[in-house]
Amino acid sequence: MGILGIIVEYNPFHNGHLYHLQTSKELTKCDYTIAVMSGNFVQRGEPAIVDKWKRTQMALKAGIDLVIELPVVYATSTAENFAYGAVKLLDSLKIVDCISFGSEKGDLNELTKIAEILLEEPIYYRKALKEYLKSGITFAKARELALQKVINNNEIEKILQTSNNILAIEYLKSLKKIGSSITPFTIKRKGSLYTSLELKGEFASASSIRKHIFEKGLEGLEKYIPDFTKEILQSSFEKKQGPVSLEEFSNILIYLLRNHIPLNHIFDVSEGLENKIYKASYKTNNVEELMKLVKSKRYTESRIRHILIHLLLNIDKQIFKEFDGPNYIRVLGFNEKGKEMLREIKKKSPLPIITKVSQYKEKLSNTKMFEKDLFATDIYTLAYKNSSIAGLDFIHPLIKL
Amino acid sequence: MGILGIIVEYNPFHNGHLYHLQTSKELTKCDYTIAVMSGNFVQRGEPAIVDKWKRTQMALKAGIDLVIELPVVYATSTAENFAYGAVKLLDSLKIVDCISFGSEKGDLNELTKIAEILLEEPIYYRKALKEYLKSGITFAKARELALQKVINNNEIEKILQTSNNILAIEYLKSLKKIGSSITPFTIKRKGSLYTSLELKGEFASASSIRKHIFEKGLEGLEKYIPDFTKEILQSSFEKKQGPVSLEEFSNILIYLLRNHIPLNHIFDVSEGLENKIYKASYKTNNVEELMKLVKSKRYTESRIRHILIHLLLNIDKQIFKEFDGPNYIRVLGFNEKGKEMLREIKKKSPLPIITKVSQYKEKLSNTKMFEKDLFATDIYTLAYKNSSIAGLDFIHPLIKL
Repeated sequence: MGILGIIVEYNPFHNGHLYHLQTSKELTKCDYTIAVMSGNFVQRGEPAIVDKWKRTQMALKAGIDLVIELPVVYATSTAENFAYGAVKLLDSLKIVDCISFGSEKGDLNELTKIAEILLEEPIYYRKALKEYLKSGITFAKARELALQKVINNNEIEKILQTSNNILAIEYLKSLKKIGSSITPFTIKRKGSLYTSLELKGEFASASSIRKHIFEKGLEGLEKYIPDFTKEILQSSFEKKQGPVSLEEFSNILIYLLRNHIPLNHIFDVSEGLENKIYKASYKTNNVEELMKLVKSKRYTESRIRHILIHLLLNIDKQIFKEFDGPNYIRVLGFNEKGKEMLREIKKKSPLPIITKVSQYKEKLSNTKMFEKDLFATDIYTLAYKNSSIAGLDFIHPLIKL
Repeated sequence: MGILGIIVEYNPFHNGHLYHLQTSKELTKCDYTIAVMSGNFVQRGEPAIVDKWKRTQMALKAGIDLVIELPVVYATSTAENFAYGAVKLLDSLKIVDCISFGSEKGDLNELTKIAEILLEEPIYYRKALKEYLKSGITFAKARELALQKVINNNEIEKILQTSNNILAIEYLKSLKKIGSSITPFTIKRKGSLYTSLELKGEFASASSIRKHIFEKGLEGLEKYIPDFTKEILQSSFEKKQGPVSLEEFSNILIYLLRNHIPLNHIFDVSEGLENKIYKASYKTNNVEELMKLVKSKRYTESRIRHILIHLLLNIDKQIFKEFDGPNYIRVLGFNEKGKEMLREIKKKSPLPIITKVSQYKEKLSNTKMFEKDLFATDIYTLAYKNSSIAGLDFIHPLIKL
C-alpha cells in the first residue's frame, strides 16, 4: 500500500485544500493518506478559527484517513521549526512513502537546489552571504542575493517571496537533514496567494475565507468551501465555540505585557524587541494594533506574532533544544484505513501513540511538549462564549468516520 | 476651621451619599470636607464602574473639597485593612477634626463598645471566644456569641449582620488603635441595605444602581442619582470608558489560574482554598461563575473576590507587613477650599503629598505601594473599549472645581 503524508492546518478546510489532496493522491498514486495537522493554534501565530477536533472532522470528510496533531510548540513557530517538526513526525511514523506539498513554483528542481544550499551552506555560498551582509542589508535579502549568485538563476527573488515556496524549501531541507526516505512531490498552488485577503478566482485563500467569516459570517462562501466545512463551522458557531481570533486574547496578552512578564526566554526575542513590545502595550489594549506598532523592517509581523503566541502559551525557547522533533504521535481522528495504518505505525514507529490522553504520563518519559498541547487547549477554550471548560483533551472523543 | 473627613467609594455617587455628606456637615458643624476615596478598584473586590477621576468629579460636584486616593492595596482588602488604611491616611493629614460614617445602627455607643473589645481582647472575651470556637462553629459566629456574652446585649447579632456597621466598628477600632484625636460621628443609613439589588425606597444602594446600569443603562435612575452623576456616567460611557465590571477581567483571571500562577503569597489564601480556586477555573471561563463554584460556608464570596483582585493586581500579602498604613497622600482633585487645606497638610503632615505623579520616585523612599496604584490603573484601562493606554496616572490632569 502506498502511503501519502501531508502537512496541513485546514483553517478552515476549503476547495483549494480539496484540490491539493485529490491531485496529490493521483500524482503519488498512494491510496492511504495521513495528515499532520496543527492543533488549536496555527503557524500564522494565532488561534485556529475552530478547534482541532472540528478541523479533524473536515479532514476525514475530505478523504484523509488519519489525522495526527502537530505539537503546538512546532505548530506556532517559524516556518523552519514548523516544517522540521512536521516532517520529523511524518518520518517517525515509519510507514509514509510520499509527501506532497503545495508551492507557488510547482516543481521541485529549483526548490531542492535552494534547500540543499541552505542546509549544507557550502563555502562559496557562505562567502557570498558574508559579502552581502557587509553592505548593511537585511539577512533575508542577503540570503536571497547569495542564493541568486550561487545558483545563477534570476528567479530566486520571486521564489523566495511566497510563503508556500518557503515552506516547501523548509520541508525539503528537513527531509534531507533527517535523511528521510520519504519521496517529496509538489503541486502548483492554484488561485489566490496564501496571503490574499480577497475572495476571488477559482480558489480563495484560507485568510480571505476567515476574513469573510469574521466580517460577514458563512453566507457567500459556498463557492469556496465544501458543504461539510460550512456545516461543521455552522454547528460550532451555534454552540458559541468560535469563530476564534487572536483578538479574544488581547486582554490577556496586554495584561502580561503591562505586568512586564519577562520575554527573554521566548524564541526569537532580542532585547531591543522586548522593550519595543512592552512599550507598545502601553499604547493599546488591542493585540493587532500592538503588532502594527512594533512591526518594522527589522521585526516582521510574523516574528512578533510567534513571540506573542509563545508568551500566551508559556513556550520557552529551551524546549527546542530539549527535543529533536515531537516525542509522541497524538491521534486526533481516523477512518477504517486510518485504523489499519495505526496498527502498522504501532509496529514500526519508535514513538508512542497517544489515543487516550489520560495515559500520557505512562507513555512519555518527557511530558513537557505534550503538556504544552494540553495547556494550549485550556487557553483556547477561554474564547468559547459558552461552557468553557479546561482539560478538554482528556474527555473529547477521538473523531472517527 | 472645622475639617470633616469621610471615607468613600462613590461607585457611583448617589442620593444616599449626598444625604450622608450634607447631614455629616450639619452634624459636625465642619465647613471643610476631605474624602479618602478608593481608586480604580473598590472594597467589594472589583473594578469601579468608572475610573477614579470621574468619581472625583462627582465628589467635588457634591461638595467635597479635597479628594485623596486610598491606595489600592487597602481599597481592595478586608473591611479591617480597608478601614485601617483609610483612617490612618485621614489621621496622618494632621488637620482632620471629625470623621463621619454611615451605619445601620446609627449611634456610637454599642459600636464603640464592640470596637474596644475587639481591639483590646480582654481576657474574659478571649475566654468566651475560645469556648465557642471549641464547639466547632465558624470564627465569625463564635466572635459574635462571645461579644454578646461579654456585652450582654442581644442586639449584637443584628449589629454584626450589616456591612456598614462592620465598617463602622473597624473605623472605630482603627481610630483607637492609632490613638487618633479625630472625633467620630455616625449617621444612620436610610433606605435600602448596602447589599440590596433592588431599586426602591427613597435611597437606592450603589449595588442596585450598578445592576440597573449594566442591565438597562442610565435611564430610570433619575430618582436615585444627582444630575451630575448621570452626566458624568453618560459622557464616560460615550467615550467607551465604562461601565467596567469584573467580568471584563474574566479571561485574564481564568488564564492565570489555568496557568497555575501561585496564590499562596496572596492575603487570606489557605492551601485548601488555593486548590479549590484552581479546580474551579477548569470548569468555567467566567469569574462570577467561578466564585459561585468556590464559595462555601467556610470561604465567603468576599474573601474569594479579594483574592482574585489581588491576583489580578499582583498584590502580595507581604506588603501589609511592610507598610503600617499609606506612605503618601495622592491628591485626585480639589476646589479652592481644598487648595487651602493642601497648604495646611503640607505644613503639618509627615507624609509627602503627590500631585504630580512623575515626581513619585523622588518623594517616596519606598515606592512599592504607590506603584501598585499605577499598575492598577494600567490594568483598569484594559477594560476601555476605546484608546486604552497605560500610564494614565502620569498624564491625567488633577480634577479642579
